[in-house]
Amino acid sequence: MKAAVLGYGTVGSGVVHVIEENHDVILEKSGIDLEVKYVLDLRDFPGDPIQERIVHDFKVIEEDPEIGVVAEVMGGTGAAYEFTKRLLKAGKSVSTSNKELVAQHGTELLDIARENHVSYMFEASCGGGIPIIRPLRTCLNAERIDEITGIVNGTTNYILTKMIEEDLEFSDALKEAQDMGYAERNPEADIEGHDACRKIAILSSLAYGKRVDYKDIYTEGISRITAADIRYAEKMRKTIKLLAYSHLDDGKVLAMVAPYLVGQEDPLGAVKGVFNAIFVHGNMLGDAMFYGKGAGKDATASAVVSDLIEQAQTAGAPVMSGWSDEKQEMQDVKDSCRQFFVRIPSDEESLRQAAAVFGSGQFVNADIEGETGLVTGILSEKDFADRLAEFGKAVSFIRIRD
Amino acid sequence: MKAAVLGYGTVGSGVVHVIEENHDVILEKSGIDLEVKYVLDLRDFPGDPIQERIVHDFKVIEEDPEIGVVAEVMGGTGAAYEFTKRLLKAGKSVSTSNKELVAQHGTELLDIARENHVSYMFEASCGGGIPIIRPLRTCLNAERIDEITGIVNGTTNYILTKMIEEDLEFSDALKEAQDMGYAERNPEADIEGHDACRKIAILSSLAYGKRVDYKDIYTEGISRITAADIRYAEKMRKTIKLLAYSHLDDGKVLAMVAPYLVGQEDPLGAVKGVFNAIFVHGNMLGDAMFYGKGAGKDATASAVVSDLIEQAQTAGAPVMSGWSDEKQEMQDVKDSCRQFFVRIPSDEESLRQAAAVFGSGQFVNADIEGETGLVTGILSEKDFADRLAEFGKAVSFIRIRD
Repeated sequence: MKAAVLGYGTVGSGVVHVIEENHDVILEKSGIDLEVKYVLDLRDFPGDPIQERIVHDFKVIEEDPEIGVVAEVMGGTGAAYEFTKRLLKAGKSVSTSNKELVAQHGTELLDIARENHVSYMFEASCGGGIPIIRPLRTCLNAERIDEITGIVNGTTNYILTKMIEEDLEFSDALKEAQDMGYAERNPEADIEGHDACRKIAILSSLAYGKRVDYKDIYTEGISRITAADIRYAEKMRKTIKLLAYSHLDDGKVLAMVAPYLVGQEDPLGAVKGVFNAIFVHGNMLGDAMFYGKGAGKDATASAVVSDLIEQAQTAGAPVMSGWSDEKQEMQDVKDSCRQFFVRIPSDEESLRQAAAVFGSGQFVNADIEGETGLVTGILSEKDFADRLAEFGKAVSFIRIRD
Repeated sequence: MKAAVLGYGTVGSGVVHVIEENHDVILEKSGIDLEVKYVLDLRDFPGDPIQERIVHDFKVIEEDPEIGVVAEVMGGTGAAYEFTKRLLKAGKSVSTSNKELVAQHGTELLDIARENHVSYMFEASCGGGIPIIRPLRTCLNAERIDEITGIVNGTTNYILTKMIEEDLEFSDALKEAQDMGYAERNPEADIEGHDACRKIAILSSLAYGKRVDYKDIYTEGISRITAADIRYAEKMRKTIKLLAYSHLDDGKVLAMVAPYLVGQEDPLGAVKGVFNAIFVHGNMLGDAMFYGKGAGKDATASAVVSDLIEQAQTAGAPVMSGWSDEKQEMQDVKDSCRQFFVRIPSDEESLRQAAAVFGSGQFVNADIEGETGLVTGILSEKDFADRLAEFGKAVSFIRIRD
């Protein structure tokens, strides 16, 4: 069985590298003699040994009966969507790292795969090289999963770690991340939480079995986090993490992406730099966590190749999984409850007013001129927003993970 | 497809519980309508709803064509071995939590399964509910794995955590673990490292593809660790963990089980109480870690059931995996190199002598009367043992994880 790769960018060249470098170990472990026959790219790569396998015409791949499995690592939701549909209809299994495409059209593509007795897999779409999709759909298939909480974006975790360890402001840490190649020139998808949002949509759909639309997920990024917030966090023996969170309760799913104060003793609090971790709670298993590099060319490519191998192994009798076409009923974020940390002016009148508005809170002093911190009791998002508006003078606030 | 369960002990009753409690979610996620038809046990359970499905005669299960998958959770290497062989030969897939049996006869049982077009699975044999076996054989099948380091025994990790957090001596912490039900009355298999040894043998066989015999693995337990050792560890910002370690280098595997000093910032250093974690390094992936409850009735049972589900899904076309019959070449532990921590008498002559024997070491003072600690440079085990004998006055030593 031969493979094709769509796109010779970072992940695409990684896929070719993993298949060639680890050819023998793959054959030994899985009995699969994996070989890349074509790489689709509009560009040419003169001098690169891949050049002789470069094709510019998608049809060559689509119509070659020798091609059984294809890695779609071109990204985007245009040509990638079109090509994936056509490949599945042509009876070829497709693996991808393209989270936008899975989040937007995954339900349809899974259906098309099922109808054509092939599979559509996306281990690399969430958490890069961390095995999480396959554990969710196989190892934890005897579990009623009721919570997933992940640090699923390495860029923001790197920025937050830098802010904490080097006492930097957000913009300086972002610049450093860009210089290191961990953040893009246009970093919005990462820092505003859109990337994490798509990942938690995919993980939630898989865990709860119904379609969770990423557009329904409340999403906040980390661009408003400051060095002062971090000083308060440290006073509370906490750290700040961008969490992608979802919880199933009574048939409804609460899902959100936002920065949270997380205890330093919490397994998620210990996840630093570009590392990712995904925490899962099941009704029999209790707590489990998957930890590793959330990005990186070879780690992500390795996950794509692991899918290709399983697809080759199960060709003809793919194990179906995914989620149903039914839309998951969502809980309104406004009704979800938690504690909040609020920064307030420390003049006497504000303190008195804050105590009256937020109820008996616990104060946190981080020696910041003219202000103090306050931890509220457990409040709903709506209730907290109302009180925040009534108080009118808060500097900022952060949610607290319980 | 109907299932049978061999043994109605702790894990066996858990398997029945998971299958019944999560019947609907299993059906929804996997399309498998899993049902327990028989439970083999020598005892009767009057009043327990299981009673009507209890059989005392193994042949009933062996000869019933409706039984496609069987959970062997009776333990031991006697009847369990015999029954597993007969079931596989009768064309039934078997899942187990029985690490002794897998470590001792796994290679043969995997072969018999292959010959009979069924599968032998053991997700629950290492790390209880933590998904690790399946990730190793599927998610990481594109990887050349070169290191596995695990905290794979919850009992010893609980004891060490208690010693650290409550400043207890080993015997007091062991007693507490026994009172809590985390350690058995006869705790030898756990505290002397035999349980961890079997687990690292299984994980290493799977990761490196050749048979690693547990009898070839150098094994030390934690019974010689004292409260004083822990005071030294804390001075070094380290903790003490029983590590099950294996490393592949140049075709040879170094495997050992021993207590190690582990950095508090090391992901493995943060694993506390009865939790387990398994760290894996692959040539493309880099570092990954799997974390969760290493034991417990429902968590372990959930792992057994996840195997039964996969076996039901792939009935007729099982995906083969395991390891070859070839014996893995092992590296002699004596040649392996690392730093060591040694406690020595603090009189002037001993200090002078220690400096001469161990070379320029770094001293650690934990305010313990009449002694001090010393961290050696990197030495081979053999070299260190020679120097230790030459010095002749060391109180004790612990290896250091790099």
